[in-house]
Amino acid sequence: MTPLYFEDLAPGQVHRSGELAVTAEAIKRFAAEYDPQPFHLDEARAAASFFGGLAASGWHTAALTMRLLVESGLPLAGGIIGAGMDELRWPRPLRPGDTIRLESEVLELRPSRSRPMQGLAKVRTTTLNQDGAPVQVLVANLVVMRREPGGA
Amino acid sequence: MTPLYFEDLAPGQVHRSGELAVTAEAIKRFAAEYDPQPFHLDEARAAASFFGGLAASGWHTAALTMRLLVESGLPLAGGIIGAGMDELRWPRPLRPGDTIRLESEVLELRPSRSRPMQGLAKVRTTTLNQDGAPVQVLVANLVVMRREPGGA
Repeated sequence: MTPLYFEDLAPGQVHRSGELAVTAEAIKRFAAEYDPQPFHLDEARAAASFFGGLAASGWHTAALTMRLLVESGLPLAGGIIGAGMDELRWPRPLRPGDTIRLESEVLELRPSRSRPMQGLAKVRTTTLNQDGAPVQVLVANLVVMRREPGGA
Repeated sequence: MTPLYFEDLAPGQVHRSGELAVTAEAIKRFAAEYDPQPFHLDEARAAASFFGGLAASGWHTAALTMRLLVESGLPLAGGIIGAGMDELRWPRPLRPGDTIRLESEVLELRPSRSRPMQGLAKVRTTTLNQDGAPVQVLVANLVVMRREPGGA
């Protein structure tokens, strides 16, 4: 992938990622280490829970989204560096057997006031399942390197 | 820990967690699977990067925060179920050798309009390092079970 600099981005651009399949084993393994709650760990207890069946931890969905962003979703020259999030929500659970992919839309761009080689990009990354339904919406403010120095 | 129901929460309450130590090995292992960027994977390349040294992925900080919330930080009766986040930022990196702990302040409570056995709690969870400096600030809207049915 050609690395993208601040100058290559424009509001309205949409960048798409490759796909990633999610297994029950992966959901349980993440949960055992980072979010050990019954609805992420055990099918029977999950069926009786709020989620009505095994569901990935939202933080697992976020972590897998990051992997897709890094590997194929948004090839920023300096890497994917989040300065902060404006929004993070999980409209529906990520389930075993789902295959996810990303659509990242550039919403806003602004040069850095203090760092001439950097800019900030506000990007909405939607994580979609195989039915095209969103399992996560993330609006992130990313630090993006410039090709040439710029000013505010 | 005594499980907390919606009726047990009040704005201004602060709940504290136990501690968790973070190693370079753990930082690299998370990054290899979920955020494979040089500044999370390799000391030398991290030293030359934006971060000036090995730093945990922000999503690793979030995942470890979740583990502390589940294990000791906020013993909600139905578990920790996030309906969405109003804020998520990482004021400084989480570094190898850091020990983290949480302070979770209840900001707002509101009964569910449609589900008499549930309420919503807005909680600000600050993840502090061993110097008491924040490495993450998360404001989450949590689904909380009621002991007795209530109405909006």
